[in-house]
Amino acid sequence: MTRAPLPRGRFITLEGGEGAGKSTQVRRLVAALAQRGVSAVATREPGGSPRAEDIRAVLLAGSAERLAPLAETLLFAAARADHLEKTIRPALARSQWVICDRFADSTRAYQGALGGVDAATVTTLERIAVGDTNPDLTLILDLPADIGLARAAHRRGGGEVDRFEQESLAFHQKLREAFLAIAAAEPERCVVIDASGDEGQVAAGVMTAIEPLLR
Amino acid sequence: MTRAPLPRGRFITLEGGEGAGKSTQVRRLVAALAQRGVSAVATREPGGSPRAEDIRAVLLAGSAERLAPLAETLLFAAARADHLEKTIRPALARSQWVICDRFADSTRAYQGALGGVDAATVTTLERIAVGDTNPDLTLILDLPADIGLARAAHRRGGGEVDRFEQESLAFHQKLREAFLAIAAAEPERCVVIDASGDEGQVAAGVMTAIEPLLR
Ligand SMILES: Nc1ncnc2c1ncn2[C@@H]1O[C@H](COP(=O)(O)OP(=O)(O)OP(=O)(O)O)[C@@H](O)[C@H]1O
Ligand SMILES: Nc1ncnc2c1ncn2[C@@H]1O[C@H](COP(=O)(O)OP(=O)(O)OP(=O)(O)O)[C@@H](O)[C@H]1O
Ligand SMILES: [Mg+2]
Ligand SMILES: [Mg+2]
Repeated sequence: MTRAPLPRGRFITLEGGEGAGKSTQVRRLVAALAQRGVSAVATREPGGSPRAEDIRAVLLAGSAERLAPLAETLLFAAARADHLEKTIRPALARSQWVICDRFADSTRAYQGALGGVDAATVTTLERIAVGDTNPDLTLILDLPADIGLARAAHRRGGGEVDRFEQESLAFHQKLREAFLAIAAAEPERCVVIDASGDEGQVAAGVMTAIEPLLR
Repeated sequence: MTRAPLPRGRFITLEGGEGAGKSTQVRRLVAALAQRGVSAVATREPGGSPRAEDIRAVLLAGSAERLAPLAETLLFAAARADHLEKTIRPALARSQWVICDRFADSTRAYQGALGGVDAATVTTLERIAVGDTNPDLTLILDLPADIGLARAAHRRGGGEVDRFEQESLAFHQKLREAFLAIAAAEPERCVVIDASGDEGQVAAGVMTAIEPLLR
C-alpha cells in the first residue's frame, strides 16, 4: 500500500530594502504559522545551504577588489541553485512551508536595476537557477529609504557597515522603486506591505497577505 | 596627435585531462614567446584574478557537502566572468598574449558531458560569461587517461588527492573523449596535440600549432 503524495509546501519570499524588517518578519511569520500547525522553515539569501553560505562569504567579503558585476550576478545565481537544491525543494517536498529572507527579486533590483547588469541576462540566469521553483507569494516590505537606513543603522549599534549599506540615500530610493516596479509587473505573485508601522502592524499586514494560502 | 590603437593580443587556452601537461606547457609557451619578443601572461582557471581565486577556493574545498551540479557550473561561470574582466581583457587590450591553463572547454567536459548538466544550460552560461572574448586558439593536450593519471600521481608525490583525481579511470577516459568531441566540433579553433611524448616533444607540437598566430 502506498500513501498519496503529500501536498507540496508553500514557498514565500520576503523582499525589500535594508532595514525594511524582512528578517524580523520572517521570524514572526514562522512562529505565527507554527501556532496554526503549519511547519515552516526560515531561510535566507545569499546562503541557506552549507555551500551557499560559503558563497555568501565570498559575496559579502569586504575585499579590496570588487567583483565584476556580471560575476557577482553569477555568484548569486550559483548560491541560489545550491540553496534550492539542498534546502528549499527538499522542505517543500516534505510539505513544509519555506519562508525566505530575500530571493531572486533582490538580484533583479541590486544587480539588475541598480548594478547595471542587463535585464535579459538577469532574467536568463534567474530562469536557469530557479527552474520551476517560483515563489507562491512574494511580500515586498515597502518603506521610505531614510527610515529603513535609520533602522539598519540602529540595529548595527555603530558596528561594521556592509557594502550595500554604504550606498547613498539616492541608491536606496532607486532600490525602493525597483522593488515596486517588480510588484507592479507581477501582481499575481507580489503583495506590497506597508513596512513603516511598528512590528505588530507589519506582521498583521503579512498575515492578511498569506491568509489565502492557508485556506 | 593620437597613436593608432595597438592590435589586440592573442588568447590561447590549453585544455585536457589531469596530468596531460597543461601547466607545464603554459610555462614553456610563455617562455618561448618571450624569446620571440612576444609579451605573454600565464593564467589559469578556475581563478586568475583575486576574486576568482576566492571562488576557486570554494570550488575546490574538500567540503563534506558537495555543491549541486548546476551551482558548480554557475560558480565556474562566475569565476570566469571575473577572470575575463579583471585579467584577460585588460592584458589583450595591452597587446599581450594570454595563455590560459583550462577555460570554458573544461566546464563543457567536466560539468556538461560528465557532470550531467544539460548542454543547453552549459552553452548559455558560457555565452553569458565569455561574451565575445573567445579563444583564438585552443590546444587540446591528448593522452591516454592512465598515463595522465600516473603523471598527476607522480607530481603529487603521495600528497593530497583532489576531488577530480579521485574519479575512476573510466571517468578519465570519458573526459578524454569529451575533449576530443569538442575539438572535432570546432576544428577552426581547436588543435589536438599528442601529449604522450616527453615535455620537449609536446612543446614542439605546441609551437607548430601557434606558428600561424605569430605571422
Ligand atoms: N516595524 C518596525 N519598526 C521599527 N523597527 C523595526 C521594525 N521591524 C524591524 N525593526 C528593527 O529594524 C532593524 C532592521 O530590521 P530587520 O533586520 O528585520 O530588517 P531587514 O529588512 O532584515 O534588514 P537587512 O536588509 O539589513 O537585513 C532591526 O533593529 C529591527 O529590530
Ligand atoms: N610530456 C611529459 N612527459 C612526462 N611527464 C610530464 C610531461 N609533461 C608534464 N609532465 C609531468 O607530469 C606531471 C603533470 O604535469 P602538469 O602539472 O603540467 O599537468 P596538468 O595537465 O597541468 O595537470 P592537472 O590537470 O592535474 O593540473 C608533472 O609532474 C609534470 O612534470
Ligand atoms: Mg535582514
Ligand atoms: Mg595543471
